[in-house]
Order: sequence, then structure tokens, then C-alpha cells
Amino acid sequence: MKDIYISDLAQFDEGKTFDGFFLVLSKQQRTTKNGKPYLNLALGDKTGQLEARVWELGDPRIAKDFDRGDIVKARGSASRFEDRLQMKVDQLRVATAGETDRMDMLPSTTYDVASLWKQLESFVDSLVNPHLKLLLTTMLADPALAEAYREAPAAKQLHHAWLGGLLEHVVSLLALADRVTPHYPMLDRDLVITGIILHDIGKVRELSWEIGFEYTIEGSLLGHIQMGVALTEKTIDNLPDFPPRLKTLVLHMILSHHGKLEFGSPKLPMIPEALVLNFLDDLDAKMQAVAGEFEKCTREGKGPNELTNKVWALDQRQLLNTKQWLAAPEKTDVAKK
Amino acid sequence: MKDIYISDLAQFDEGKTFDGFFLVLSKQQRTTKNGKPYLNLALGDKTGQLEARVWELGDPRIAKDFDRGDIVKARGSASRFEDRLQMKVDQLRVATAGETDRMDMLPSTTYDVASLWKQLESFVDSLVNPHLKLLLTTMLADPALAEAYREAPAAKQLHHAWLGGLLEHVVSLLALADRVTPHYPMLDRDLVITGIILHDIGKVRELSWEIGFEYTIEGSLLGHIQMGVALTEKTIDNLPDFPPRLKTLVLHMILSHHGKLEFGSPKLPMIPEALVLNFLDDLDAKMQAVAGEFEKCTREGKGPNELTNKVWALDQRQLLNTKQWLAAPEKTDVAKK
Amino acid sequence: MKDIYISDLAQFDEGKTFDGFFLVLSKQQRTTKNGKPYLNLALGDKTGQLEARVWELGDPRIAKDFDRGDIVKARGSASRFEDRLQMKVDQLRVATAGETDRMDMLPSTTYDVASLWKQLESFVDSLVNPHLKLLLTTMLADPALAEAYREAPAAKQLHHAWLGGLLEHVVSLLALADRVTPHYPMLDRDLVITGIILHDIGKVRELSWEIGFEYTIEGSLLGHIQMGVALTEKTIDNLPDFPPRLKTLVLHMILSHHGKLEFGSPKLPMIPEALVLNFLDDLDAKMQAVAGEFEKCTREGKGPNELTNKVWALDQRQLLNTKQWLAAPEKTDVAKK
Amino acid sequence: MKDIYISDLAQFDEGKTFDGFFLVLSKQQRTTKNGKPYLNLALGDKTGQLEARVWELGDPRIAKDFDRGDIVKARGSASRFEDRLQMKVDQLRVATAGETDRMDMLPSTTYDVASLWKQLESFVDSLVNPHLKLLLTTMLADPALAEAYREAPAAKQLHHAWLGGLLEHVVSLLALADRVTPHYPMLDRDLVITGIILHDIGKVRELSWEIGFEYTIEGSLLGHIQMGVALTEKTIDNLPDFPPRLKTLVLHMILSHHGKLEFGSPKLPMIPEALVLNFLDDLDAKMQAVAGEFEKCTREGKGPNELTNKVWALDQRQLLNTKQWLAAPEKTDVAKK
Amino acid sequence: MKDIYISDLAQFDEGKTFDGFFLVLSKQQRTTKNGKPYLNLALGDKTGQLEARVWELGDPRIAKDFDRGDIVKARGSASRFEDRLQMKVDQLRVATAGETDRMDMLPSTTYDVASLWKQLESFVDSLVNPHLKLLLTTMLADPALAEAYREAPAAKQLHHAWLGGLLEHVVSLLALADRVTPHYPMLDRDLVITGIILHDIGKVRELSWEIGFEYTIEGSLLGHIQMGVALTEKTIDNLPDFPPRLKTLVLHMILSHHGKLEFGSPKLPMIPEALVLNFLDDLDAKMQAVAGEFEKCTREGKGPNELTNKVWALDQRQLLNTKQWLAAPEKTDVAKK
Amino acid sequence: MKDIYISDLAQFDEGKTFDGFFLVLSKQQRTTKNGKPYLNLALGDKTGQLEARVWELGDPRIAKDFDRGDIVKARGSASRFEDRLQMKVDQLRVATAGETDRMDMLPSTTYDVASLWKQLESFVDSLVNPHLKLLLTTMLADPALAEAYREAPAAKQLHHAWLGGLLEHVVSLLALADRVTPHYPMLDRDLVITGIILHDIGKVRELSWEIGFEYTIEGSLLGHIQMGVALTEKTIDNLPDFPPRLKTLVLHMILSHHGKLEFGSPKLPMIPEALVLNFLDDLDAKMQAVAGEFEKCTREGKGPNELTNKVWALDQRQLLNTKQWLAAPEKTDVAKK
Repeated sequence: MKDIYISDLAQFDEGKTFDGFFLVLSKQQRTTKNGKPYLNLALGDKTGQLEARVWELGDPRIAKDFDRGDIVKARGSASRFEDRLQMKVDQLRVATAGETDRMDMLPSTTYDVASLWKQLESFVDSLVNPHLKLLLTTMLADPALAEAYREAPAAKQLHHAWLGGLLEHVVSLLALADRVTPHYPMLDRDLVITGIILHDIGKVRELSWEIGFEYTIEGSLLGHIQMGVALTEKTIDNLPDFPPRLKTLVLHMILSHHGKLEFGSPKLPMIPEALVLNFLDDLDAKMQAVAGEFEKCTREGKGPNELTNKVWALDQRQLLNTKQWLAAPEKTDVAKK
Repeated sequence: MKDIYISDLAQFDEGKTFDGFFLVLSKQQRTTKNGKPYLNLALGDKTGQLEARVWELGDPRIAKDFDRGDIVKARGSASRFEDRLQMKVDQLRVATAGETDRMDMLPSTTYDVASLWKQLESFVDSLVNPHLKLLLTTMLADPALAEAYREAPAAKQLHHAWLGGLLEHVVSLLALADRVTPHYPMLDRDLVITGIILHDIGKVRELSWEIGFEYTIEGSLLGHIQMGVALTEKTIDNLPDFPPRLKTLVLHMILSHHGKLEFGSPKLPMIPEALVLNFLDDLDAKMQAVAGEFEKCTREGKGPNELTNKVWALDQRQLLNTKQWLAAPEKTDVAKK
Repeated sequence: MKDIYISDLAQFDEGKTFDGFFLVLSKQQRTTKNGKPYLNLALGDKTGQLEARVWELGDPRIAKDFDRGDIVKARGSASRFEDRLQMKVDQLRVATAGETDRMDMLPSTTYDVASLWKQLESFVDSLVNPHLKLLLTTMLADPALAEAYREAPAAKQLHHAWLGGLLEHVVSLLALADRVTPHYPMLDRDLVITGIILHDIGKVRELSWEIGFEYTIEGSLLGHIQMGVALTEKTIDNLPDFPPRLKTLVLHMILSHHGKLEFGSPKLPMIPEALVLNFLDDLDAKMQAVAGEFEKCTREGKGPNELTNKVWALDQRQLLNTKQWLAAPEKTDVAKK
Repeated sequence: MKDIYISDLAQFDEGKTFDGFFLVLSKQQRTTKNGKPYLNLALGDKTGQLEARVWELGDPRIAKDFDRGDIVKARGSASRFEDRLQMKVDQLRVATAGETDRMDMLPSTTYDVASLWKQLESFVDSLVNPHLKLLLTTMLADPALAEAYREAPAAKQLHHAWLGGLLEHVVSLLALADRVTPHYPMLDRDLVITGIILHDIGKVRELSWEIGFEYTIEGSLLGHIQMGVALTEKTIDNLPDFPPRLKTLVLHMILSHHGKLEFGSPKLPMIPEALVLNFLDDLDAKMQAVAGEFEKCTREGKGPNELTNKVWALDQRQLLNTKQWLAAPEKTDVAKK
Repeated sequence: MKDIYISDLAQFDEGKTFDGFFLVLSKQQRTTKNGKPYLNLALGDKTGQLEARVWELGDPRIAKDFDRGDIVKARGSASRFEDRLQMKVDQLRVATAGETDRMDMLPSTTYDVASLWKQLESFVDSLVNPHLKLLLTTMLADPALAEAYREAPAAKQLHHAWLGGLLEHVVSLLALADRVTPHYPMLDRDLVITGIILHDIGKVRELSWEIGFEYTIEGSLLGHIQMGVALTEKTIDNLPDFPPRLKTLVLHMILSHHGKLEFGSPKLPMIPEALVLNFLDDLDAKMQAVAGEFEKCTREGKGPNELTNKVWALDQRQLLNTKQWLAAPEKTDVAKK
Repeated sequence: MKDIYISDLAQFDEGKTFDGFFLVLSKQQRTTKNGKPYLNLALGDKTGQLEARVWELGDPRIAKDFDRGDIVKARGSASRFEDRLQMKVDQLRVATAGETDRMDMLPSTTYDVASLWKQLESFVDSLVNPHLKLLLTTMLADPALAEAYREAPAAKQLHHAWLGGLLEHVVSLLALADRVTPHYPMLDRDLVITGIILHDIGKVRELSWEIGFEYTIEGSLLGHIQMGVALTEKTIDNLPDFPPRLKTLVLHMILSHHGKLEFGSPKLPMIPEALVLNFLDDLDAKMQAVAGEFEKCTREGKGPNELTNKVWALDQRQLLNTKQWLAAPEKTDVAKK
């Protein structure tokens, strides 16, 4: 447990002292105009990030030997500088093992991971095709892989990404697919479900989430699509009698799920199941971006008569919160009417 | 009733005489190498099109005064020429009123139109918002508009289009939306339903379907998006107390449903309901294109180990029929393995 | 009347006290490094914008209750900070009604609006087609619409936009069209004139110019093209016997005047009059951008041997002022010649 | 003089014998299914092109030694084959010198070339800047260049191109520029006029028009923009005291007149005069394409309620002839209204 | 051995009888206008393709039971029809085993395959890095893979593709790389060589060359890039102690060798060796296209003063044969000079 | 000689006084918050750039009359401000003639220019074609042109450009071409060599390098491609009997060397020699960008397990230094493995 979370600081009195455990995301030594060295830190916990400065490097209450990636306990006060909070650190030491939980140090899904995992497993149970069921069971039975699947974010960029994000996205997609597949009788439900569970599995290797969210070098060079295909193919090759054509289709679904060459899929969807996977994946990602942006506007105090900020996932479009706008009193919206 | 349908001719003996009622889709006089004039006709009925030739223009059994758009009764025989059927016409007269039904002369939905219409009406009934319900009820209560809505194709090009196609597409979309909207609690279901019912309503003016499927001049100059917006706006302006903001949102959904400027929407979707409308419309159109292509391949006798033809609606991609390919015996698929 | 205009401040002594009336464009409370709150304001008048700071919030000479959109009288001094002027406000109160004219608070056309309006009316008078003449007369006879037409800027962004900008642009286009149309006998002059007067009329609803220049929510969702079409169509539908085909052509010209789908026109120009409207509109906008940039460079003291800044309306191209460059003494322009 | 022109044949009785002089545009020997050799010719004169066949190669009335590029006298008859006219040649001999005029053998401007040239010269006379005036006078005084300027087509493709086309296009542009330049006081009229006269002068070397219209090898490798710049630069370098900056601007106008890199201009317009040249050149070319298409539709017998064919110069758009459509009786244009 | 090759027929007398062994590339039954069935065949051998017709289906000298993919012995005569040769088949039987060599039935490299293979092996021998050397040795030691590598074409389309084409292309690239790599000391030669040998190895599975050159279904769904990566990864995973980072780099080179996402590489080159591989592969393919086009023009009898046909691999550009053009007598190249 | 170079300052003690000669790249007077004027300077020498401030304008030790483009001697101290070095100037005077060498004031090639020039000349000597040899000899014999060729940078942007950069790039290309041309026997080596030496020669006029590296106005309006063509054409026209076709090919190579219209080449490569020139030029520029980025990362202290910064010349891609990464100890690269 930690004393205070970064998100609490917005309501905190400026200048008042507090303690907290934080993950050191970056650490740089700089010099003031007057030539005095100081430390510039980026600290994080599950609720956000905070810039911090250590002005007195020689102070014995400041640890000398901490580094990027360490969890530290810091004491100090915060003040607002040009609309950004900044912490002045008075004391700082490296946290001891057991004092805090690393999972508290990075943003994390608001859902219960165990429950999400159970939902995933029940979808696997529902499969009829024994080969696909065995494939998924085998992969999820690998403890290291399963743990990574439960932890991995769905993407790198902080505002779209959190621990457990991959699993949360996949479970949402599974539920959505269960609604859509019966509408199109030509679809092989088992293939769609398998494709959803495996489409982003390469992200457990493309990304690292030890200290912030970053691409591994291997991830940059190969990409999660290739990494997911390789992981799947290796598993299949160790299964007895997995039908070769079924293997081709499963790999094709992973390969093609970005839907366009310029989005990094080397092949376009050529079977109905792959087409549907690409559509639902895209729709769900965009709807989550919209929901996230609406929440952010609420947090930032935007009114119902304002458009949102530009949304990166929607080509920098600004959106309107339908329900809030309809519910707000109609002022004279049009100039000079 | 007509004696024979064009689709029956594939099984018909070459050279054997038959009678049939057909719509004259085009009529051109040409000359043989030897300087003899003849008629080249395109004949159609609900099952397809057929090229026909009248070699003996002076024959008294050939009517002189028929034209493009007439329904005619023709007698003759068919033969295959370079893989295409061609009819040699021996007798031809204009059909008398009542002898046949114009609805039999153009391709038409395989669903029961009355039943589709009932489904549409029950969706309207299910709306909670009284303004949107009144808007839809009012528009569908206009007999000419309702008749056109039931008749209109969804698009011009023959292989994608048939009488009742618009209604069939809308009802499929409504059912699909009813599956998807509960997955995203932020969605206003009434807006989504209204958007689906109205998004393509301008097609009843953009297209004509008297003789084949064609764009009207007005349709070419204004487009179905603008025509649908105008139709909707005029109706709303005659309703009492329709909330101005709700009007803006309904019009926005029609305007933005193509999803991209380069597809002819002058505005991109800016509310979640418009985003979902664009996705579902696109998905449903593509899935129908896939299903249609699979049927066509079956009709053409393609085997399970062949890709389809290039599909125009999917950027000229070739597709694979998942179920047939998986079910077919695995031959050695890979060269020299 | 106001004491000093923002553009005068460039020549004003730093630190010397002055009074002025300003429109409050934005108002934000911030905190200094030392935790002291202050106000950050954006003030504007017809000659420009100015950043201002109120450091002593408790001072009784500073009004408590003013807000964004108010006109205030402020006293203080200005100094240059990193090349930008900044005002330090010592006193500030809300202006009383009648003390100043809101039209003095936003940038405005340098032409006489009454005279521009007269020119517009004389073009309407010159029309031969009675339907088009009646359409325009009717629209311009609506007092609210006419007032908005005279006030509206032609675009949102401050450096391209000013009150009366729409009218100024339209009158320039009309004069240009009167030069060009006789060169192409196939053109229907009345249609071209009508298209020019109506092409951007939707901007009176797309934009608001109460406080700075902004898009209305409705404008963002529907766009000025759709809004102009709707305004025109509603007027036409109330005129007796307006020929339907003529209506289609007028609406087509408004719809297509951006000339490309990706510029927000849902239809491309399909009649010569629409093609010419698109060309002249584009040419006139670009020539005004060039002229404005040349003036800006003169104001900023650029020499004749320098290119302009990058011009947004010309794809970020830099331009050369032909006449100045030719008139300047030829130094050795080329390295090492 | 020649007996009959190709455009006359549309009205000519099929099978009736006629004589005519034609330019042989291509000549190929082929074989019938039965193994008999025959000649396939493309014949042209100023009014069009005609496919022709010589079936009896051994006939003494058929010359043996004629070739592509020769003018021949041919006798035979025409018939329509699949909507295209085809001539059956019974006799054919090479025309003797003086028997016919090569200028009658290719499509040619309908304007009087001498009068066009005079107009061009009077524009040159109107220049105020002595250097530009001398430059143009010098270039047009070169007899070979002037002759080529009077003869050259404006483009290669037959339906857009004719002898004298370059001159006709330039004179139209000059008249248009004289209308537009006074509207923008910042423009240097002399530069605009000079730019118009020289912008396409490289076409006299890029194209050849001896036998049909073709690119020379040099034209393909260098292009008319570079060829025109080189011609102009060489002339300037031989003039006394031509101001270097003025030279740069003239060359820049030629270089940039296509307006976009992807249209082959290596530099974009950077002075107002170059911007206007690009706009007017583009507008005039498109308006001529529209006018030409309208004439073609009239010739082909299209009705006022039909769109034109797709127009290549307008991105394959179909157009509507405003005046004819408005003048035609309004039938019920919209389906099911 | 076969009696006559297809390329010989161009010089052969029309109508004269000949025998030959051919591969049946396609076989379709059609009907004449008069209702008589006949066979339309595409026959091929290593020198080209030939259309053939069997008119007398009932003739006992015509085998009943042959099919696409069979090698047949056919007797008949050829004639030219609209510039294309067509064979009339009088006798036809299926070839017996041993009567002919399947390798004679498809176009094939003009180089000695054994010698090319030896060159490839000597490049492998030259590697210094023991892991890369072992990887390549292991793969090329697989007899089925090695045989496929020696046989595979480099691409599907007939005019760019021949048996042995893959090997020929790789050996040319290896020699080119040996020239270029020493110029850039930062390059790891062993990685470049390995990348070249493996970059297209997936083509042995993407393509089949039993009957003509075609994509396998698996090849269409996965592509040769993915197939090559999988083949390589599986081999590496069976090697002892192959360094993981080296594996990543080898796979990255295969993945990225198309150089652009839109060309099907899911990752762009991120190491210098991958950059060079992409450049040399592209250059060598284009230079082979140029050389092939020059040869084709020579075969077709084009003169030195003519441009080539449009070359697909060079964006439909036409080329000029430098040496021939410079060597030809200079006629007056420019019109009216 | 100068006392200290800018690159030395990184190791220099903050606050310690030093002297140095610098080129004044820019000079602006500004005011502090308190209204005190100061000078903001950009100073440069061959090793880099440095921001500098003169706080005491009235100090007699600060020269009054220096300007942009002057070489000055300055004394002061440096400190680090937000990671950037900044000099505080205490004394400053204009350097006297002879005190320092202007060549020391701008970044410059690390190669010996005389030796590069000799290599260039030996390539010219190696030509077989007497016309091309004479052309190059003549151009390089012009002393002003030769001096500019030796001095010119290859591009404007500082991090890619240095004095002698053009020559260095050309000599590298010549050596590369000598490796590649023998691989393709169809290539005319003399043409390739000539094209390489002349392809960027227009840069001596497009750029100026008196004070920093900038485009001349003429360079902006015409571009180095056109300037190089003009320079070459004028030289050729003064040579006796230069073959016209050879001239066309040489000019074509310069014109087309950017390889794409959108990169500013008005013609695409149409001969093999031009194709190869474009490829090698592009490859060499990219390989130099890679090498430069690797060096920069080493200077900046990046580790072997980090990607480089985004590289502008490679579409903002990040790269990996192969050799360093392979040599570094393999840590566990993949998250949670």
C-alpha cells in the first residue's frame, strides 16, 4: 500500500508535505542557469505520471544509488507550474522488497483480471472444433504466456494503454463477436473466436511493461503480427494431427487482422471470418477511444456544448457527446439567428 | 405469368423453340458485313439478361414499333456463342396490358417484401423517443415514398442490385444493430435505428428502376445523401416541436454515413451513433458481397480448391470459401512438398 | 471610442501606462512557481490580439465578475517578452453599454460594407432570369440573414478572416466573374452570379463571431455546404413556380463548389457554370492569401530579397514578391559567381 | 482538292463507290482464317480517321509500294461493321506531288491561322517592358520557329489535338488573361502575357505532326517544359542587357505552369503571375474539353436529358449541358415521384 | 525429345502438318454458332504458348480422356488469325511416360542450373559466421527444398517467370552484393549474403509450377514472406545455440525485403543490411525487366528509333535502348527543325 | 587559428572563461521581462553551433557594429541551460582580415579536398567517349565553377551538409558505380560516369554557403536540376560536333535523377543508365544518413540496446546498429519471458 496516489494530488493543497511510493520512469541530471546540478525525474504510479525535481543532491536524505526502473519512497510537496503539477522532493529512498506491489506502479485495467480470464476460458470451452479448442487450451496452459497475456497492455501509448488492456480488449471483442456471428450464417464461429483470442498475442513479446510501456528491440524488428504467428505456428506443429488447412486459416486471420497493407498486415482478409475479425477489432478500438475521450473531457471539466479534443485514433477528429448535448438546455446555437 | 425465365435457358436444349415475356433493355440497329441490317437487343426478366438478335426485319411476325422499355412477347431459340447465350428471335410482339407483371421483369429480392416491411415497422414501433418515432411514422406513411422504399434497389449495378434491395439491406442492418448496440451502453439506440432507416432513403430519388437500374439526372447532380437529407429535413420542419439539436444529429448521421470524404460524405462521423452506422453499413454491404460471390461461384461450378473471382466491393480481392475448402479432401496443396 | 488600439502598442514605449477597451477572448486562472494565483487573459480588438496578466487578484481596482466575451476597460503597461508583447493590467472593469462598439472589437473588412452591399444588390438587379432574381431578392430581403451576410467572416482562422470577409470575397468574385463569363459563350451568366452569391451563404450558420471566430456545433456537424443548400432549398420551395430543374442546378452549384470530394464537396462540378465557380473561388482565395502575405511581410520588415513565410493556403509554399524583387538593386545573387 | 472527306461518309450510302485522298496512318499485313493475306490500313484526313481493308493484294489496281506517311488516292465503298465504318478498297495509288495539300490530311483548327497570329502579334506589341517585348519579337521572328508555332497541335491525342491547336489555345488564353489581370492590381501584366506565349513553346519540339501526332524521342526524354525553357534561355542569353532577375522569372513561369510536381512541373508557382498562368491554362483547357464534348454529343445525337460520355480531361466525369437540359420539356425526372 | 517447339512455328509454313509434344494448360468445350461442340485448348512448351482447336470431337484419332496438366502428342497445322497463331489439331494422344521430359514443357532459365547451384554453394562456403553458414547448409541440404529451390520460378506471370528463375535471380544478386558490400564498411557481409539466399525462399511454397505458374491457396493466404520466415525459423529452432539476436536479424531481413508496407512487407528495413538487400533486389529486378524488354523489342523487330512497349515493372514506362539509338544514323529527329 | 572550437565546450568546465573566433549566423535584439535590452546570437564554427547572449550592450568591450555574416572574436563563459549550452559573452570584436580562415567557420568534409578532386579527375581521364570526356574537362576547367564544386555542400540542412559535401558524395558514387556497372553489360559506363559528375552540379547555384547554408532566390525559383541542365547545355552548345543524341541523353540523366515526379524530376528515367544513376544516388544518400546517425548516437552516448533517433532521410524510421547490438551481451530482451 502506498500513502498517496498521483491522481489524488490534483485535490491536494499546494505546498503541503506528503509521502508516496513511485516508479522512476526516467532520471536525468541537469544544471540550473547558475550552474547548480539538480535531478529531473519522471515518477509514475497506476494513476498517472508526475514530474519531480531534486534540488539538493548532496542532502543525505536523498539516496545516491537509485535508477530508472526502481520503486522509490519519496517525500515532498507539489505545486502547479504553468498548469502542470511538479513535485519538489525532500527525501527519497529505494523501496524495500515487499513494501509495495509493482502492479500498483503502472496504469491498470479497472476490471477484475481473474474474472476477465474466466470469461476468456469459458469462450474457449464453448468451441466445438476439437483442434482449435486444443490449440487454445495448450497456449493458455503455458504459465509464462498466460501470465503475460493477463498483464500485457494493448498498446504502447500511455493514454490508450494499461496493464490488462490486452485481455480487456479481447474479452470485449469476444462478447461482441458472439452477438454478430449469428447474424451471418456463413461464419465459422470457432474460427472467429480463435482469431480474436490469438490476433494480438504477439504483443506479449512486442511490448515490455517493466518500466513504462515500450517496444522491445525484437518487437520493433518483427512486429506483433509476425511474433503471434510464430508463437501459434510452433504450438500447432507440436499438436497431433492438426489439419494443415485449418492451420493456414488460423495463421491467415492473425496475419490479416489489420485489414490493410499500409497498417502492417502483409495479407488482406480473404475469408469471411478474417473480414469480420478486422471490422470488429477496428470498431471496438474506436469505440473505446471515444469512451475514453468522453471520460477525459468530463475529468477536464468540458461542458456539454463543447466538442472533445482531437482524437488520435479517429484521424484527429473532434467528437460530440450525444447524450450530454441533447440533455443540455438549448441555447441559441447559431450566430445571429 | 410468362412461359420461360432467362435463368431456365442454361438447361434448355440449344436450338429448341420457346416463348417468353421480356423487358427490352436496349435496342440497336446494326448491319452485317454484307450490309444487311439486323436488330441487336438486350432482353431482361427477373432472373437475368439475354442478348438477342432479330435477323429478318421485314418479317411480318416481327413488330415494327416496339422500343426500349416495352415488355414484349418473343418466340425463338437460343444457342451458346463464345460461352454466352444468344437468342435468335423469330416472332416478337408488344405485350398487352395485364398479360404480364412488370415486377417480373427486373431482378427482385428473394425475401417477402410485405414481411420485410412489417419488420421495419416493428422497429419503428420499438422506438422510445417520441420525436424520432413520429418522424419515421410520418415518412413511411407517405404512400408514394413507402412504395418507392419497398421497390428501390440498393445500388445501380446489376449484380449488386435488385428490386427491394434497399429494404432488404435496411432490415438486415436493423437486426444487426439490435445485436451490437447493447454492447456499447453509450449508444442512443433510437438514433441508431433512425439513422439506419433513413441513411439511404435518398436512393428512391437518386435511382430509377423503370427500365433497368439507372441514375436520374437529379441523382447524378445531387446524390442520394443530399436528397435523403432534404427529404428528412422537410418532414421534420413540418412536425411540431421537433428539437433542433435532435434534427441536427439525424441529418448528421445521414450526411456522414459513407465515413470518408472521398466516398462522398461531406462530413465524417462525429458522434458514436454515426460511427456505428458507418461501420455496420460497410460490414453488411461487404458480407452481402461475399455471400453473393460464393453463390455465383457455386452456380458457375467452381470447385472448393479455387479462389473466387475478384470482388469489386472488396478492392478486387479474391476470396476463399472457408467451409467448402475445409470440407474438401486435402490434396497435396504445396508444390513439390 | 477607445483610447488605444492593440496595433498601436508596437510603437508605444515599454512600461508607459495606457487605457483601452478590449474584448476578453479567454480567461484562465494560474499559479506562479511560488503558489500565487494570477489571471492569464487573451484580449482582442479590431487590430489584433494581446496576452495580458493580472497579478494582483485581490486589488479592488480589478473587477471580480468579468468573463470571456465581455468587453472591458483595462489600464496598464506593456513590455516585450521573448518577442511577444504582454500587458500587465493594473486596473480593469467591465465596459458599460454604449461606451464602446462591439464591431470595434474584432478584425473587420477595410472596405465600406454599405458600398459592398450595394454592389451585391446591383448584381442581383442585373439578372435576366426572373426565378433566380426572385430567389436572391427574397433571401437578401430577410433582415436577419442579410445582417449576418454583411457581418460574417469568410473563414475561421484569424489571420484569414475578418468581419465582412464573406461579403468582401463574394463581391470580388462577382466582379471577376463578370470579366470571365463573356469569354465563354456557353456559360449561363445568371447561374454563375447566383452560384457565387449563394455558394458560402451557409457560413452565416457554420460560424459564430460573437467572441472570436468559431465553428458552431451545428456547423461542425453539418458544414456550410449543407447549411447553404438547406437555406436555399427552403426559400425556393416557398417561391411560386420555381422550375425544378433550375432548382437542381442551383443546389448542385453550392454542393460542388469545393471541387473535390476530399475538400468536402459530395459532388464534383458537372455543369460548366459549376466548374467556373470552383475555379474562380479557388483563384480568388489564393490571390487574397498572396496579397495578405505580401502585406504581412511588409509590416514585418522583410526585405525585397527574401521569400515570404510559408503560406498555409498554398500548401506551405514560400512566395516571392515579383515587383519588389525586380525593383531592388541586383546584388550578386548566386554563390561564388 | 479531294473528292470526299471522311466525315461525309456517315451520311453516305453504304456500298456506294467513292474516291478520296487520304494520309496512310498505319499499314499492316494480316491473314484471314483461311490463310489469305490482306492489308489493314488506318487512313486519315482533316475530318477524321477510317479503317480500311485491301482484300485483293494481287490486283494490279492496288499499288505495291506505298507506305505509312504517304498520301494515297483510294477508291472503294464503306459499310458499317459493329457500329464502326470500314472502307473496302478497290483501287489505290500514291498521290502525285501537287495533287493534294498535306494540310488537308490532318485535323486542323477551324480558326483562320493568319488572324490568330495577328492577334498574338498585337499582344506582343502591347507590352511595355522593352526586354520582354524584344524577347518575344526575337523568338517569333525566327521563321522556322514561327512556322512551327502556327502549325503545332496543343497535345498528342487526336480527339484533343489539331494543327494550329497550340496557337488557338494561346490566343484564347491571352484574351482571358486580358480580362483577369486588371482584377488583381498586384499582377505584372507583361510577365503574364510573356508567360502565356512561351509556356508551351517547347511543344514545337516535343511533338511531331508529319504523320499523325506523336512524341519525338527527344520530347519523350526531355519534355516540352525543359525544351521551352532551353529555347527561351538561349534567346535571352543572346539579347543585350536582359536583366538576370527578369530572366529567372520568365523561366520560372514556364517551369511551373503545370502547377504540381506530379504533373511534371519541377517547381511550383512562387510568384502571383505564375499562379495565375497555371489557373488560366487549366481553366481554358477544361472549358475547351467541355465545349468539345458537348459538340461531340450533339454530333452523336445524344438528347438533352442525357449526360455526356466520361470526359478524360475532367477525371472521367460525365457532364450535363446546362442550356439544353433547361430548355428541354420537363418530363417526370424522378422515379415514382 | 519433341519434334517441334512452339517458337519454331513463327517461321513455319501456314497449313503444313507437324507433330509436337505439349503440356495442356487449359481445356474448354465450346459450341460454334451452328451448335457444334469443339475443344479450345491452351498448349505450352518451354518456348511459349499456343491456342489450339479440336473441331472433330468424335474422330477416333482424338483421345477422349486427356485433361489439363497432361502432356500430349498432337498433330495438325497452324495458321495466323488476327496476328495470333492458332493450331488446328487433327490427331491427339496422351504421351507415355518417358516419351518426353516435363522440364521441356515450361519456360526455363537459359543458364545451367547445376552451375548456378555451384555458385550459390560457394557463396555459402565463403561465410565466416558459423551460425549463418550452418543455417544455410542445413536448409540447402534438405533434398526436397533444394530441388524446389532449383526449379522454382521467381514470379508467376509468364513473361517474367521461368523454371530456375528464382535461383538465377539469387545468384545475380549475390554477385552484385559482392561488388557493393565492400563499398560500405559498416555492412556485415555474412548477413547480406544470408538475406539474399533466403529472402524469396518462401516462393517454393507460394507458387506451384506443375501446370503453368500459379499461386497455391496457401500462398495466397500467407504469402512467400511469411512462408519463408516460417521455414527459416523452424530450421533455426532446431540448430544448437543459434544466437537469438542473430535469428531476429535474419528474420527481419526476410520480412522487410519488399521495402514498403504497401508492397507487403509488414516491417520496413531497420538495419543497413536490410536496406541494402531491398535496394539491390529492386535494382536487379528492374534491370532484368529492362533487359528482357530490349530483347523482346529486338524479337518483335522494333527499330532503334522506337521506344519500347510499356514496362509493367517500371510503372508502365516506355524505355529507350541507349546503345542502339546512339548507334543508329541521326535522322532529323525534331519536327520542323 | 582559433583558440577553442564549439565541439570542445561539451568537455569544458561550466563558467570558465575562454576565447574563440566565430561566424555570426544570426543576431537579434530582445528585451528581458524587466525591459532591459540584450542580444541573442547564433554563433558557428566548423564544429557546430552555439547560442550566445550579450547582456551588457553598453559595455565598451562589446563592439557596436558587427552584423550577421561577420567573423568575430568573443570572450566569455558557457553554461548548460535545459540541456543546451549557452555562452555568456563578456567581450566581442570583429576579427581582422587574416586573423582567421572563413573555411574554419562552417562544417566541412573530413576528407582531403585535393585528393577527392584528383579522384574525380582520374574518373574523367578514364572515359573512352571523346565527346563526354571533352564536356567534363571543359566544365571542370572553368576555375570559378571548379572552386564552387569543391566547396559546395550537398544539401542545405546542417546535419546532412558540409563544405565539400557535394564533391565527397560524387566521388563515393563514382567508386560505387565502378563496382556496379560491370555487373550489367548493357550499361554505357561513360554515360553513367558523366551523369554522376553532373547530376547535382546545379547545386553550386541553388545553394549559397557564405553564412550558413541557404537557398538562393534563383535556386528556389528554378531548382538545381534545371540549373544543372542549363549549365551543361550551354557548355555542350559551345563544343564542336557534340552529337545531338548524346546531348539529349546527358540532359535526360540530370533531369530524371530524382526518379519520381513528386521528388522534382520532370521526367522519369527512361534509359538503363538513368535508372542506375537514380538507384545509386538514392542508396548512397541513405547509407550516408545511416552512418551519420550511428555516429551521432555514439557521440550522444546511446547504448547498443537502443534504437537510433528517427532518421529524416528514411521516412522518420528508427534504425538499429547491427554490429553493436550483436556484440552486446544478450540480456533478457523480451518482457516476462
